[in-house]
Amino acid sequence: MTMKRTLLLLSSGLLLVFTTVASAEPVDSLPSWNEGKAKQSIVAFVEKVTKTGSPDFVPPAERIATFDNDGTLWAEQPLYSQLFFVLDRVQTLAPEHPEWQGKEPFASILKGNIAGAFAAGKDAIEEMVIATQTGMTTDEFDVIVKDWIAAAKHPLTKRSYTNMVYQPMLELLRYLQDNDFKTFIVSGGDVAFMRPWMESVYGIPSEQIVGSSMKTRFELREGKPVLVRLPERFFYNNKANKPVGINAHIGRRPIAAFGNSDGDLQMLQWATSGDGPNFALIVHHTDAEREWAYDRKSSIGHLDKGLDEAHSKGWTVVDMKEDWKDVFPPVR
Amino acid sequence: MTMKRTLLLLSSGLLLVFTTVASAEPVDSLPSWNEGKAKQSIVAFVEKVTKTGSPDFVPPAERIATFDNDGTLWAEQPLYSQLFFVLDRVQTLAPEHPEWQGKEPFASILKGNIAGAFAAGKDAIEEMVIATQTGMTTDEFDVIVKDWIAAAKHPLTKRSYTNMVYQPMLELLRYLQDNDFKTFIVSGGDVAFMRPWMESVYGIPSEQIVGSSMKTRFELREGKPVLVRLPERFFYNNKANKPVGINAHIGRRPIAAFGNSDGDLQMLQWATSGDGPNFALIVHHTDAEREWAYDRKSSIGHLDKGLDEAHSKGWTVVDMKEDWKDVFPPVR
Repeated sequence: MTMKRTLLLLSSGLLLVFTTVASAEPVDSLPSWNEGKAKQSIVAFVEKVTKTGSPDFVPPAERIATFDNDGTLWAEQPLYSQLFFVLDRVQTLAPEHPEWQGKEPFASILKGNIAGAFAAGKDAIEEMVIATQTGMTTDEFDVIVKDWIAAAKHPLTKRSYTNMVYQPMLELLRYLQDNDFKTFIVSGGDVAFMRPWMESVYGIPSEQIVGSSMKTRFELREGKPVLVRLPERFFYNNKANKPVGINAHIGRRPIAAFGNSDGDLQMLQWATSGDGPNFALIVHHTDAEREWAYDRKSSIGHLDKGLDEAHSKGWTVVDMKEDWKDVFPPVR
Repeated sequence: MTMKRTLLLLSSGLLLVFTTVASAEPVDSLPSWNEGKAKQSIVAFVEKVTKTGSPDFVPPAERIATFDNDGTLWAEQPLYSQLFFVLDRVQTLAPEHPEWQGKEPFASILKGNIAGAFAAGKDAIEEMVIATQTGMTTDEFDVIVKDWIAAAKHPLTKRSYTNMVYQPMLELLRYLQDNDFKTFIVSGGDVAFMRPWMESVYGIPSEQIVGSSMKTRFELREGKPVLVRLPERFFYNNKANKPVGINAHIGRRPIAAFGNSDGDLQMLQWATSGDGPNFALIVHHTDAEREWAYDRKSSIGHLDKGLDEAHSKGWTVVDMKEDWKDVFPPVR
C-alpha cells in the first residue's frame, strides 16, 4: 500500500491534509532476497507481531531485535575488519615504538607476516588491541576510527569496509525499523570501533550499539573533561556474555535475534526463551564465489553447535548462495 | 497550538484527513513551575535547540538529556528508596538466615536500629545489597521489585515511592520528550531496581536507564536460559563514573543534564563540555516544609562543590521552595 499526502493551508487557518491511498502492488521490502523459506519466515514473523488485534501482536516498545555484526551484517573474512584496523594501527604507530621490531606479535606484523602474528593466539591479539586502541581520549579515538574507515580498503575486494555490508541485511534492518522494531547491534567488536560509522550505514544510533569495551577514566585536563581509554578490558561481549550485555544495556529480552556463528548461540537461545512470539536467524556462509564459504571448521565465524541447534529448533537458516539475489551493495 | 484531526474515507478509496489548527493560547508545558529564572532558562534552551534554521538548532538524534534519579526525580530522604527496599528485604529474608541475628549490620536492622546498621559504613551497605539483591535470576528479581514497589509506603509520608516523584520534573521530562529529546536516567541506583517501574512513571524505556549493576551469569537450567545475579559488583555508576557510564551506554555526549548532588557533578561537567549548545540544572533542596532542606552538610544528596560550580558557571539552580508550585503529584 502506498500513501501520498497533500497539504493545503486555507486562508481561514484550516489545514487540509489529503491522504491518497493507492492500492498498488504490494511493496517488496526485501528485494535482494530470493523467494524462499528464509524470506517467507521473516515476513510472516513481522506481519504476525505487527498486526493489531492478532494474538501474536507485540507492542512497539517490546519489538527489540538484536543483530550480531561480523559475519551477520558485514563480511568477516579473511579477518575481522577490526583486526585489519589493528594491523594498520601497528604500522602507523611503529615509528613511535622501536621496541616492536624485536617483540612479538608486533615484529611479525611489521615484517608482513600476519599469520605468524595471529599464531601467537588470543593474548597476542589482546596485546595489540591494547597497544593500538588505548591511551588516547574517546574523542581522539573516534577521529582515528572515522579517518581509517573512510580511507581503508579490504585487501582482497578493494572495497571500503562499509561497502562490505550485506545488501539483504541492510534491507532487513530497514524493514524491521519501518515496522517499529528497535534494532540493536550486539557484537564482540569494540563499541568505540563501531559507533563512528554505524548510524549512517545501518540507521542504528550509538545508544543502540552493544559491544566489547575497554575501561575508561574521567579526567579534567586544563579544566576540560575527557574520557581516557585505559589499557584494561571492561567487558568482552561474546558467547554467554551476549545475553549478559543485552540485559545490562537493553534490560529487555529481544523478540528477534540474528547471528552467524557459535558466538551468537546464547543470544539466540535468550531471544527465543521468552513467553511471546520470537524469531531467530542464522546467516550461513555458503557462497564461495560471491563471498566466502565456511562454518564448522573455520576459526573466524565458527558455526557448529549453532547450526545443529538452528536445525533442531527450527530457526531460520539463511543459505547465502540460494537465498540472496545480491550479497554486497553496488560499489559506492 | 492544538490540532484536531478528522478522517473521511470516500467510496473512491480516497482518504481525506482534515487537520484543524486552532491558534489558541500557548500551552504551558510546565504548569507546576512558578514563573522565574529556572523555568525561563529551561524553555529558552528547548526553544533554541529545536528551532529549525536557528544557529543553535540540534538535530533530534543528538538531543540527549540525562537525569539523575535520587533527589532529582524523586525524594531521597531520610534514605534512598533502594535502601528502604534493602531493609525490607532483610526482614523478609531473615527467617532463612538465623545467623543474621548475631551478625552486623543485619542484627541492628532486625532490632529496628537502622542508624546503627548504617553507621557500619559503605561496606556494610554493600554487604546488605549483595545479601538481598543477588543469587536469584534477573526475572525473579524483576518480580521482587515490582511486588515491593507496588505495596511499599514511605515511612514518613505514607505515600507509595512512585508517588514521591517530583511533579515539576515529570512535566520537564514530558516537555523534553515532546520536543524529541531522548531522555536517559543516569543514576547510582541499581538498573535492576529502576527498570521495573520507570517506564510507566517517567515514560523512559528500560534501554534508556543507566545505573549501577551487579555481575550476571548466563546459565541453562533444564535447557531454559536464565541470567543469575552474582554477588559481585559490575559497575558503580556515580561521580566520575557517570560520564564513563554515559559513554559506555549512550556513546554520545548529552546536551542537557539534570542532577542534585556532587555525585552528579562530573555528569554536568561532561554534558556542558561539548561544542554546541548545552544545559545543566541542579535541583536544590530548599523546602523543609513540603519536602526536605539539605545540601552542603548532608551525607545523602551531598551538594557542595556542585553548588559552587553551578553558580560560577551559570548553570540553572532550581530553588524548590521558590520555583515549584507543587512538589509531589496528587496522591494516586
